[in-house]
Amino acid sequence: MSPERVPLCLDLLPALRGEDTTKSFFQELVNILLSYVCKSFRRSSKVLDFHHPHQLREGLEGFSLELPDQPENLEQLLVDCRDTLKYGVKTGTVRAVDCFAENVPKMYYRFTYEVSPVFILMEEILLRKMQEIVGWSEEEGDGVFCPGGTMSNLYSVLLARYHFFPEVKTKGMTALPRLILFTSAHSHYSVKKSAAVLGIGSDNVVVVKCNDRGKMITAELESSIITAKDQGCVPFYVNATAGTTVYGAFDPLNAIADICESHGLWLHVDVFTLYSALIGSYMQVYLNYVYYRAWSVTWNPHKMMGAPLQCSAILVKKRGLLKDCNQMCAEYLFQTDKHYDTSYDTGDKTIQCGRHVDVFKLWLMWKAKGSEGFESQVNKCLENAEHLFDKLKQRPDFELVFKSEPEHSNVCFWYIPPSLRNMSPGPERNRRLHEVAPKIKAKMMEQGMAMIGYQPLGDKVNFFRCVFSNPATQTEDVDYLLEEIASLGHDICIRTETDL
Amino acid sequence: MSPERVPLCLDLLPALRGEDTTKSFFQELVNILLSYVCKSFRRSSKVLDFHHPHQLREGLEGFSLELPDQPENLEQLLVDCRDTLKYGVKTGTVRAVDCFAENVPKMYYRFTYEVSPVFILMEEILLRKMQEIVGWSEEEGDGVFCPGGTMSNLYSVLLARYHFFPEVKTKGMTALPRLILFTSAHSHYSVKKSAAVLGIGSDNVVVVKCNDRGKMITAELESSIITAKDQGCVPFYVNATAGTTVYGAFDPLNAIADICESHGLWLHVDVFTLYSALIGSYMQVYLNYVYYRAWSVTWNPHKMMGAPLQCSAILVKKRGLLKDCNQMCAEYLFQTDKHYDTSYDTGDKTIQCGRHVDVFKLWLMWKAKGSEGFESQVNKCLENAEHLFDKLKQRPDFELVFKSEPEHSNVCFWYIPPSLRNMSPGPERNRRLHEVAPKIKAKMMEQGMAMIGYQPLGDKVNFFRCVFSNPATQTEDVDYLLEEIASLGHDICIRTETDL
Repeated sequence: MSPERVPLCLDLLPALRGEDTTKSFFQELVNILLSYVCKSFRRSSKVLDFHHPHQLREGLEGFSLELPDQPENLEQLLVDCRDTLKYGVKTGTVRAVDCFAENVPKMYYRFTYEVSPVFILMEEILLRKMQEIVGWSEEEGDGVFCPGGTMSNLYSVLLARYHFFPEVKTKGMTALPRLILFTSAHSHYSVKKSAAVLGIGSDNVVVVKCNDRGKMITAELESSIITAKDQGCVPFYVNATAGTTVYGAFDPLNAIADICESHGLWLHVDVFTLYSALIGSYMQVYLNYVYYRAWSVTWNPHKMMGAPLQCSAILVKKRGLLKDCNQMCAEYLFQTDKHYDTSYDTGDKTIQCGRHVDVFKLWLMWKAKGSEGFESQVNKCLENAEHLFDKLKQRPDFELVFKSEPEHSNVCFWYIPPSLRNMSPGPERNRRLHEVAPKIKAKMMEQGMAMIGYQPLGDKVNFFRCVFSNPATQTEDVDYLLEEIASLGHDICIRTETDL
Repeated sequence: MSPERVPLCLDLLPALRGEDTTKSFFQELVNILLSYVCKSFRRSSKVLDFHHPHQLREGLEGFSLELPDQPENLEQLLVDCRDTLKYGVKTGTVRAVDCFAENVPKMYYRFTYEVSPVFILMEEILLRKMQEIVGWSEEEGDGVFCPGGTMSNLYSVLLARYHFFPEVKTKGMTALPRLILFTSAHSHYSVKKSAAVLGIGSDNVVVVKCNDRGKMITAELESSIITAKDQGCVPFYVNATAGTTVYGAFDPLNAIADICESHGLWLHVDVFTLYSALIGSYMQVYLNYVYYRAWSVTWNPHKMMGAPLQCSAILVKKRGLLKDCNQMCAEYLFQTDKHYDTSYDTGDKTIQCGRHVDVFKLWLMWKAKGSEGFESQVNKCLENAEHLFDKLKQRPDFELVFKSEPEHSNVCFWYIPPSLRNMSPGPERNRRLHEVAPKIKAKMMEQGMAMIGYQPLGDKVNFFRCVFSNPATQTEDVDYLLEEIASLGHDICIRTETDL
């Protein structure tokens, strides 16, 4: 992606903007932070400059929390940062002896509006924007930021269970019939993990078969649901994946939604495993995706949107469910006799107490890139994947794991060392091929010039998996990577041919 | 805490070190970060400089991960930061196309040693240090950093359940008898929340009565256990709190440990709710605490130790349990054919996947303060609490919620407006008194010069709760706060006397 092709403020990556711009921006930012820190330790400083939610929402002296389509310029970003600090609570002051206060000025605490007025509203605005993109109506939609996509998926199972069996909250699983949930063989392991943690049991997760391309076979899903019912169990939840971890495959969402509808099951869509496929009209149109049919969605901005981990959101169609499911009404935190609208106190929606402010980085990125910037960033990664796919098709020393075009930014392939090129397929060739990727990777790590993952999957022996998420990666880097693998692989196989 | 009385490097707080020192330190730090960021985007840069775990552990060119008793100087801290970056993986490079890589150089991913060599070892060393302080032997102890204390408490219940009923992982709760857990009326609400989330059910949490000082009554605990057994239920877990949220009370741990031992129950100690009472020989000796008898401990450095949220650890006595309970063996992440000792891949211990690097801030703070710095910081807060307690005893316009000396840094009190001072105790006075704290707090927030929390508890109407955690708070600030409350309270009550 050449600098000319990206919007001016797409990113602060030195590779895209020039090192000087990056440096001067961050130095200015640090000055803002330092004067904030120093100021908040002075006794004359206010702990906070209080405004009611509606005041802050409407915008104060040009401070707008709304998310733009077009990127803002760097000067405006600095103003945004300054205003975020200005309207927040200075928890570092020596005169804040609330249970929330600490000895560092920080942007880390949130569960009531009084402690985090800015971040509470930021989260609301971001979640609303995300729900709009999913396609839910104005009357629908709720959500919360979670410590990672695995936790978001856990929330989805927790909420689905509570939706069908609210008595589980007080009575526990022993009061319930045997529940069954469904996910594909290529889905993320967090669905099984959630079942184990929530007391449902991993055996009660039915793993539905996938086709060669890693997509859930819907006929298998439907027959599994019927089988479970016949056995006296209660199916309640289906996880569909939009971008699987390894293949980057998209389950057939519309067909799965039909099945869920006819059986009355909760449909969760995990846009977790790889990237934020929700962003970018390209993906939405291309895949004809109908996210609005989901009852819940896991969306991970820390993947392809480039937010630093952790930054994951669980979005829920049914409003109020998060709070009903999770609230414990601890009166020492969530008093209702406060002097502002306490419906903004979101702490009781979560299974955590205080949370890390994951919203701020996403909010600032959105200001810096705009919706269009995210879209072009995602598209650039998809272009890199296409480039790699085209290259691999042409080379005799590589073999694609599947021949169809990549649907997302994952490309899976084997390097075939000279000694294996003329071997006929079979167990012996597989046994040898299985050892190739780990050996190349070990060399690569010791040399340290590139990094790529590998894994086996089902009947496929160890293969490389290339996943593009860095918009600064150019086609020349893709070419370099292939040459690097070929050169390391060629070398290894010569020296260890007898082992193979 | 006057600057002379604190160790040189106790903290970088401008209030303690002077604004110029704080500023120049952070500017230097930013320069290190910026040259790292710029370097990692250059094509000529290595993705990583690989070292095996034992090499990194033994220390490389003076880079030591060990935690000191005495604070390091500021120059050394900068070297520590530089080395942390140097030996980490440069995930921002354009040639890292691993599934772990992202488009920002970051310090946020951890589940395998290959992606986070430095942070994996840092976590191990920190957890080991914490286990030593708890008092477990070298053969015992395991742990993991969690996104907040509520999650740590959830882990403790999850692990206890798995310890007694490992089949729950695959079969779920429906295969189990009705489980019962115990916690005190003053404990944190996360124990109940955990029971709801894990499918045990909040009704199966027995809330054990406390005495006037907020400590669990052990006779009540024992009789509740017996009652539960008589009803055919299976008690399995007791949560004891070391520093309750509101009163800062310590449950009688030794007596509770005896009861757990005789009934074969898991003993969890929540050092969560307020602060890290484990740090500081003062606390350990004063309370004659025997943390080593716990089967698991929640320790929150983001409380009194001053680490920014989130930074919480769950420590578990039984080694291997975390992994057995939580591993799902996703082969695309946790391959065992890698070229280094994969027992360092800790991802499968957690209920998350990638995690935020909460260890780094604590590790750096420990370098900056040393164990002794943490201790003196905690002691300073306790001194402030004693000062406030002494002041309150002397003033006729305030009333203490309990008359005994504070055990921790919480002090709970009412402001008594003039109109209530001569009223006899009873429902009418309570009704009025209940409205005083919210009104004062509302005024305080609008004025913004100080911040303090309030809440009701049991039969006690709304009272203020002062919690000291900022070592820069001086006794003059404590005095200021009391005057502020008195002046706001006096004023409010005059103007609203008819309402009251």
